Amino acid sequence: MKTIDLNADLGESFGIYSFGHDHELLDVVSSANVACGFHAGDYQTIPKTIQLAKDKGVAIGAHPGFPDLKGFGRKQLDLNLDEIYDLVVYQLGAFQGFAQLYGLEVQHVKPHGALYNMANRNYEMAQTIAQAVCDFNPKLKLFGLCNSFLVEAGREKGLDIVQEAFADRTYTEEGLLMPRHEPGSVKHQLEDIVEQVINIVKNERVLTNNGTYVKLNADTICLHGDTPEAAQNARLIKQALEDEQIQIKSLE
Amino acid sequence: MKTIDLNADLGESFGIYSFGHDHELLDVVSSANVACGFHAGDYQTIPKTIQLAKDKGVAIGAHPGFPDLKGFGRKQLDLNLDEIYDLVVYQLGAFQGFAQLYGLEVQHVKPHGALYNMANRNYEMAQTIAQAVCDFNPKLKLFGLCNSFLVEAGREKGLDIVQEAFADRTYTEEGLLMPRHEPGSVKHQLEDIVEQVINIVKNERVLTNNGTYVKLNADTICLHGDTPEAAQNARLIKQALEDEQIQIKSLE
Amino acid sequence: MKTIDLNADLGESFGIYSFGHDHELLDVVSSANVACGFHAGDYQTIPKTIQLAKDKGVAIGAHPGFPDLKGFGRKQLDLNLDEIYDLVVYQLGAFQGFAQLYGLEVQHVKPHGALYNMANRNYEMAQTIAQAVCDFNPKLKLFGLCNSFLVEAGREKGLDIVQEAFADRTYTEEGLLMPRHEPGSVKHQLEDIVEQVINIVKNERVLTNNGTYVKLNADTICLHGDTPEAAQNARLIKQALEDEQIQIKSLE
Amino acid sequence: MKTIDLNADLGESFGIYSFGHDHELLDVVSSANVACGFHAGDYQTIPKTIQLAKDKGVAIGAHPGFPDLKGFGRKQLDLNLDEIYDLVVYQLGAFQGFAQLYGLEVQHVKPHGALYNMANRNYEMAQTIAQAVCDFNPKLKLFGLCNSFLVEAGREKGLDIVQEAFADRTYTEEGLLMPRHEPGSVKHQLEDIVEQVINIVKNERVLTNNGTYVKLNADTICLHGDTPEAAQNARLIKQALEDEQIQIKSLE
Repeated sequence: MKTIDLNADLGESFGIYSFGHDHELLDVVSSANVACGFHAGDYQTIPKTIQLAKDKGVAIGAHPGFPDLKGFGRKQLDLNLDEIYDLVVYQLGAFQGFAQLYGLEVQHVKPHGALYNMANRNYEMAQTIAQAVCDFNPKLKLFGLCNSFLVEAGREKGLDIVQEAFADRTYTEEGLLMPRHEPGSVKHQLEDIVEQVINIVKNERVLTNNGTYVKLNADTICLHGDTPEAAQNARLIKQALEDEQIQIKSLE
Repeated sequence: MKTIDLNADLGESFGIYSFGHDHELLDVVSSANVACGFHAGDYQTIPKTIQLAKDKGVAIGAHPGFPDLKGFGRKQLDLNLDEIYDLVVYQLGAFQGFAQLYGLEVQHVKPHGALYNMANRNYEMAQTIAQAVCDFNPKLKLFGLCNSFLVEAGREKGLDIVQEAFADRTYTEEGLLMPRHEPGSVKHQLEDIVEQVINIVKNERVLTNNGTYVKLNADTICLHGDTPEAAQNARLIKQALEDEQIQIKSLE
Repeated sequence: MKTIDLNADLGESFGIYSFGHDHELLDVVSSANVACGFHAGDYQTIPKTIQLAKDKGVAIGAHPGFPDLKGFGRKQLDLNLDEIYDLVVYQLGAFQGFAQLYGLEVQHVKPHGALYNMANRNYEMAQTIAQAVCDFNPKLKLFGLCNSFLVEAGREKGLDIVQEAFADRTYTEEGLLMPRHEPGSVKHQLEDIVEQVINIVKNERVLTNNGTYVKLNADTICLHGDTPEAAQNARLIKQALEDEQIQIKSLE
Repeated sequence: MKTIDLNADLGESFGIYSFGHDHELLDVVSSANVACGFHAGDYQTIPKTIQLAKDKGVAIGAHPGFPDLKGFGRKQLDLNLDEIYDLVVYQLGAFQGFAQLYGLEVQHVKPHGALYNMANRNYEMAQTIAQAVCDFNPKLKLFGLCNSFLVEAGREKGLDIVQEAFADRTYTEEGLLMPRHEPGSVKHQLEDIVEQVINIVKNERVLTNNGTYVKLNADTICLHGDTPEAAQNARLIKQALEDEQIQIKSLE
């Protein structure tokens, strides 16, 4: 039976501010990327989210981001490589501490937002993040965008890398994501999203913005959790996968 | 040969803001309490301070505080016990991550500022902190003020507790610290400070504000590092201890 | 025709984090207390909220709080009086700058959360806040809890004070609020809330937790905006007031 | 008698963290750029710095920066134009509130660090900042680097613009600053710095990195206050100007 890992960014509430649909997403995904308190999340959301993931049998990973709550880690911040290294280690440590309290292994690391995007396109930043993960714990899996520098750098460091595709983003003919500000870069129709998920898992390809197909060899697919329809979409994606005899299953 | 542990709060710089006399203090003390990024310090000062302590053979401990950089963790903040627990774990985790990168064991935990003062006087808060330390890693030593609830709570949890005295603070007849806002609560004359240190180590007692002596059974003595004369005082205290054949030595 | 001012705390979103029901509340209230970026709100929510209030003809006021986004300004923070003075002035200035851009007068100041509660019970803090408001702009009205030190201090400074009652909080026989952590301190039944509002406006009294009535001379009534039913409750309170021929009207 | 305005960035301490040499610099400069609490400074340093400037008869200006205390506003942050506009207004408002308390007019606005550098090179950002200043108070003078977009945009908006030169930075043949990371971009020899100041004021030109001279029409010269020798250098620059019969005088 074919399997696929589904992941989502979770634990992104802060203080009294609630964000996302963690409960519902955790009923669907097999890997949870948990915010570590820099771009979102705080010292209370981390243990709550880990507990929730544990209850639902979902594997957990650290989701470090830029130290910018106001911008939710989505703004590029011009840090040097030493700073990048250290902020990743700090967040991995904070997260690992809680995971250990709950008796869980940390499965993976997925950089967040601008940190993820920059690392996917910038080889030196990718190397720096991969090195930080490697030095912290070489058994951690590293998530990177399919065909990105983050994947390449992680592989070079000997990390177990996990190539990620997006359920609702339109791809270019190079197998990369259309920039978010361009029209058509984000899919809003559920049937398009479901079709893309099935296509990735069954046929290892996605439809590009030019109507052609491009090969995509993904180990995990990211579901977004921050839209009003996120919870329902996740359930329907799960249903569609089951209908195709595809099992949602965390990484090994 | 008699020995004593000397400790100091270090790694309290932030970004471009430099604070304290870390290099000079690390030439004297045997235990370094390293700020973890909440009341002071950041993801770059932690590894720098750990490296420095390692170079000088000084044992390291986590120095968690309230999340209040503006107030330097010295302002009371009315958090509930769950929040206290979680903020201690978060900071321990972040610190442990760096210690591990540098191949060092974390020796101890010493709460900072208002968190320390409140925990010394409030049994429930003391229990909460002791529990957090215990759950995180029961081999960590816990620093608490001599005769305080923090010491009592740590002992109840089975932690290796370390009773702390202060070189430059005036004691009451109950063996507690005079509140900082009262006149005479802080000693500024080097000879008084040196005398207090020697008295604690050799005679296990301190002179109180009433001119009497009170018994004090301290395992470690805190040197302050944030005054202009801190570096010189530390050297002279070290010299005075050596003159008395007392060895400065970290805890076992 | 009888009139009453209704107020609500608004503009308490932060970055991507949405909070409250500003649009709906602004259809009901006559005075908006706008967060100033310390306990909540940011440099973008302030102008957005002012624009919204302007569009709906609602008077605006500054809603300064403690600098604690994580605790939403609801945690007591042990600042000294100089710090209180300065943080109020800072927030008034930031708010005034935007009000002026939109061609609006700032009508009032209402401290937020723990700052409000502490000032209502602590005369020195109340004096400090009243002095800050007075020095900044003596024409600003100051909101304080009915019968509180904030009201007394504001009156002594010559400020136009506005006594505030709460629609959904239970009162003691002293005309003060039951502490929030006590059972029964917050009313959840809409009919109880509506009855309390009508009672305050028509009869200048509220039902206490002992079943007796206590006199309450309120100039404004606060509606909470942060519960799921807040928007609907506000509409129904408005309807009930209209049914009683009471006009919702900002202060003069 | 020839005159020149000298300016310095001041009020950049934060909480217990002390930064710069404000007292000494205020004995020399005629215009103080006061940090507004985003990149540095806080609600207490602003009034203290204003009081100090008032005591010494130095004109004050707002020095808004990016909201990044850790990076001291020196890191590029990829905000959109609306955000830039609003963060400038917020900081101007907060600063104006204090200035008014002390009975002082705000003379000018000088963006800080990365915000200044980006605005000098990016026309849209320059326009946005100029517009924010203009909308807030069109009588404020706007500081910009000689020959920069910030100067151009300010002039187009009808602002009174103030062209700024740097005492210790090496210029290119285009009359622009050598990037800070290039060797030789910052002058450390006092005689070079003094010579450059005198050259700018007397001869309206600077020596470039190629040994040629380039014309520079500066209204103000920035002295840096954050190096160990900053205070002494400032005094000696003042002395050198006086020796040349040049008066240090704020703008009109």
